[in-house]
Amino acid sequence: MSSIPVRSDPFRPAKRVAGQKQDVWTIVNEAATASPVQPIINMGQGFFGYNPPKFVTDAAKAALDRVECNQYSPTKGRPRLKKALADAYSPFFGRKINPETEVTITTGANEGMLSAFMGFVEQGDEVIVFEPYFDQYISNIEMPGGTVRYVPLQPPKDGTTKTSSAANWAVDMAELEKAINPKTRMIVINSPHNPVGKVFSKDELQAIGDLCVKHNIIILSDEVYDRLYYVPFTRIATLSPEIARLTLTVGSAGKNFYATGWRVGWLLGPDHLIKYVSAAHTRICYSSVSPLQEAAAVGFEKADEEGFWDESKREMRAKMTRFCEVFDELGMPYSDPEGGYFVLANLAKVNLPRDYNFPPHVADRPRDFKLSWFLIMELGVAAIPPTEFYTPENAHIAEDYLRFAVCKDDDVLEKAKERLRGLRKYMGET
Amino acid sequence: MSSIPVRSDPFRPAKRVAGQKQDVWTIVNEAATASPVQPIINMGQGFFGYNPPKFVTDAAKAALDRVECNQYSPTKGRPRLKKALADAYSPFFGRKINPETEVTITTGANEGMLSAFMGFVEQGDEVIVFEPYFDQYISNIEMPGGTVRYVPLQPPKDGTTKTSSAANWAVDMAELEKAINPKTRMIVINSPHNPVGKVFSKDELQAIGDLCVKHNIIILSDEVYDRLYYVPFTRIATLSPEIARLTLTVGSAGKNFYATGWRVGWLLGPDHLIKYVSAAHTRICYSSVSPLQEAAAVGFEKADEEGFWDESKREMRAKMTRFCEVFDELGMPYSDPEGGYFVLANLAKVNLPRDYNFPPHVADRPRDFKLSWFLIMELGVAAIPPTEFYTPENAHIAEDYLRFAVCKDDDVLEKAKERLRGLRKYMGET
Repeated sequence: MSSIPVRSDPFRPAKRVAGQKQDVWTIVNEAATASPVQPIINMGQGFFGYNPPKFVTDAAKAALDRVECNQYSPTKGRPRLKKALADAYSPFFGRKINPETEVTITTGANEGMLSAFMGFVEQGDEVIVFEPYFDQYISNIEMPGGTVRYVPLQPPKDGTTKTSSAANWAVDMAELEKAINPKTRMIVINSPHNPVGKVFSKDELQAIGDLCVKHNIIILSDEVYDRLYYVPFTRIATLSPEIARLTLTVGSAGKNFYATGWRVGWLLGPDHLIKYVSAAHTRICYSSVSPLQEAAAVGFEKADEEGFWDESKREMRAKMTRFCEVFDELGMPYSDPEGGYFVLANLAKVNLPRDYNFPPHVADRPRDFKLSWFLIMELGVAAIPPTEFYTPENAHIAEDYLRFAVCKDDDVLEKAKERLRGLRKYMGET
Repeated sequence: MSSIPVRSDPFRPAKRVAGQKQDVWTIVNEAATASPVQPIINMGQGFFGYNPPKFVTDAAKAALDRVECNQYSPTKGRPRLKKALADAYSPFFGRKINPETEVTITTGANEGMLSAFMGFVEQGDEVIVFEPYFDQYISNIEMPGGTVRYVPLQPPKDGTTKTSSAANWAVDMAELEKAINPKTRMIVINSPHNPVGKVFSKDELQAIGDLCVKHNIIILSDEVYDRLYYVPFTRIATLSPEIARLTLTVGSAGKNFYATGWRVGWLLGPDHLIKYVSAAHTRICYSSVSPLQEAAAVGFEKADEEGFWDESKREMRAKMTRFCEVFDELGMPYSDPEGGYFVLANLAKVNLPRDYNFPPHVADRPRDFKLSWFLIMELGVAAIPPTEFYTPENAHIAEDYLRFAVCKDDDVLEKAKERLRGLRKYMGET
């Protein structure tokens, strides 16, 4: 076979992983490490600054002593967790969820959403995503050959001058309908929304749901912050049977139980959708982590009697209020979150020094990357530039904002506030 | 937009998950549940019948008490685990492995191999796989659009009449070279081999490696059973620098530490390969399970001082010897494993009753599926029919074999032997 030409570049990567620009997490983490202000206060990535509740970590420890909890779980998940989820969510959905056919466990919500796209998206199919978006959506849609159609949430008109509810980030329904075409296969909704903090209203969800029914579009509803809402929270799958049959609802033990490193997520939905998500998940990860599935099951079984859900919501809202005080003090507007643990502050009033020396990979990016870099280097507080969650053409919408994660201990929040007061000298007239 | 045609079948799955036949695990598990002999002795799937060592579960419990061990790990893995792996494997590879650039942690070896295929395989590229193969390879290669080229291992000629070493399953090098063409991007090697139990010899690996160098083919070496070898074990990456630069080596904490449900795996290899595996992994799972990564790190740090690796190998070899005695008693040939915890027994001498009532989904399959069903229903012992790991045209090679997993408690093995003695009445002249 010496006639076979030798492949000249055996190390050439597949296009799907080639030539990526440096992602926001790497930029922010590297800046945090390089900052002269140490230790940095990291309000960037949305991980918790405290441990899961003891009744959940205790359950994980107990699982580690049981042989079957350390071995492969069924590919669709441990029966105990599927039942616990069906029991916990049936009241919210107003119908009895079948744990065997309407629940599937995934390796975190992230791989769960990838499994949904892998289950339904073929080369050339389109998926609608609102901007700003959770960045993993995009690669997860493109991996099976999908094309993303972007529809920006419209920020409040007076967002640079006035604090107002995150509800004021609005869906332009005409623009959404314009994005639909015969190739549209799925739409991704995220409520409570990261990074905006918006909880989609019942009317908004009804309008989106009606469009999906009209055009037969599968709805992937990312509800990973579903226990953290500070206004009435509607799940789109509950609006009508017609919408429900199109809807996959995504959840996360990591977000629910303060354990983002546990990688236990799930999808709930009708059998005719779940079975293909599950088939894709089997091909991607085979099965998910057993002892932590068991712990999550116990978490759902005990959360109500422990008063955990109420406490969780109350504590997070208190953290949000505590932290946002500093923006009120500074006269810096923000989008007051209706849910979740992120807040978008508007730093239009901050004057970055004209001669400030930004490194090239930051200087090339919109103003929010410079704001992020500046806060890390000068104040020792890390936050995420949200234009990372926009297409270049719409990035201008968010270039004055930064995203802060408040899921941190109260003393950390107080220290962050103290440091952020240092912004005062960069505000005011130039 | 009322002119848009309504999609008539919104629930149509993507081809990659549609129309799969029932997989072997489901068939065997459902049969086990339905068997009149209960409790069944399950020697089918390769999970352990006992717990991970205490020093490893203790480390997992300790990790659960540490905030940072419950939150997101870096996408490439926890620094402590990457260092522990680099330290543990550098002596085997005869060079210093760089933990930052030559190690990446994945969600089990399974998702690690998918990440490798996602990192390098484009639509139409070909990947060579030996038969029999671990079934997940196939969907993992096809997911990024790859085509599998199969090369069967040739069984020992006298396999139906005589027990001999698993070494006698041979690679036909001429056939392997014939399978190579300009589209060949990767080859998968598995040593110690599942289900054959073969440890590829140095000469075999050198010949395969030389071919890969000649044709610039990336080698994905699945070495998840790397601590369980009963003859000298060679790692293909150690044979020459030219081979090493083409080789990704796959490992698994689940297999190493008796915890198949932990989903912690890794790939080791040169930076120019690892970086794209890591990029793909980030897009698939984002990061992997944190507390169990930490426990695996402690496992590698302490395994030598605990004498764990020696004990692990000695105990598994003793289980293999103990179990295979029953085949010697019965005069039933098997392939004596050189590594791993699976044994292929040859049941050509078993006469299945002519009028036995097999269900249609078993009656349609080769003889080994019927043997598996028969053993489950009549004797209460579950084993895996290996033709599942063959293409239809080569399935005849394995239709008299069953795969037994011996990673079970000794008393379970003894019970299985007792039950298998019941085969005697179905053997002998018909």
